[in-house]
Amino acid sequence: MDQIVLNPIGIIKSPYKEPKDIPIQGCFGNPVEACCILNNEYVTGLKDLEHFSHIILIYHFHLARKYKLNDYPFLENEKHGIFAIRSPHRPNKLGLSVVKVNHIKENKIFFTEVDVLNDTPLLDIKPYVEPFDARVNTKSGWIEKHFKEGKIPSATILK
Amino acid sequence: MDQIVLNPIGIIKSPYKEPKDIPIQGCFGNPVEACCILNNEYVTGLKDLEHFSHIILIYHFHLARKYKLNDYPFLENEKHGIFAIRSPHRPNKLGLSVVKVNHIKENKIFFTEVDVLNDTPLLDIKPYVEPFDARVNTKSGWIEKHFKEGKIPSATILK
Repeated sequence: MDQIVLNPIGIIKSPYKEPKDIPIQGCFGNPVEACCILNNEYVTGLKDLEHFSHIILIYHFHLARKYKLNDYPFLENEKHGIFAIRSPHRPNKLGLSVVKVNHIKENKIFFTEVDVLNDTPLLDIKPYVEPFDARVNTKSGWIEKHFKEGKIPSATILK
Repeated sequence: MDQIVLNPIGIIKSPYKEPKDIPIQGCFGNPVEACCILNNEYVTGLKDLEHFSHIILIYHFHLARKYKLNDYPFLENEKHGIFAIRSPHRPNKLGLSVVKVNHIKENKIFFTEVDVLNDTPLLDIKPYVEPFDARVNTKSGWIEKHFKEGKIPSATILK
């Protein structure tokens, strides 16, 4: 199959400067704010986005290493298939986060629930649509034991 | 910013052969089954994925046209910013679907909740992790009026 060439639509500015600083996911009560800065040519594409509380960011894990097909996730010392974990060190280095929109001004989207590194190239923004994107009563394989009884593992929260 | 080059990890085989056939989203009671066929070199990366009920597919909208920054969504005849709609005709042509895993055999993932065209190049597979990916009580901007009181718009359901 042919290669696919993408052009970043902007950059994500975040207080997380190094991989070791970053929380595993951004949605667990983390007040840190970050910002998508869109290239000016795309600003018109943000029309009406401010009425969505959440958006999906797709981005490039620019500091990821070469992937291994079985690797360790952040949450435990057991290897799993790379497509069964959320590691950045994966084929095509595509990252995905659901984040909470605070406000949008011109070419900037300020958001919380941040788990993205500073200077991450941004590839797409989609509105989060609960009837399309939310699933409940799902099975989460090896991850499930880390979230038993609504417990949030301490490794997911920024120290 | 530099261009980013991706190599498809496989292909999605679906009964939907043309854009006009496809439902707007796949999660509204649609029994159609499709299949991800991974390139053989990636099969080891599927280890432990079968214990997840849902996965996130990221793929290339290979039949998408050139994008417009304000465009019509499927659900209504009002234009919105391309980043506030889920149209395939978007910068970088990246698609995202949450789908339900039926079973995995060797390099094939059979799934339902399908809204993907046949022969779509597959770029990544991530496990759907409810505590990371599900959000409830969100605001869905212009889309909200189409889902009032739990109603599912008929346009989202395959005829």
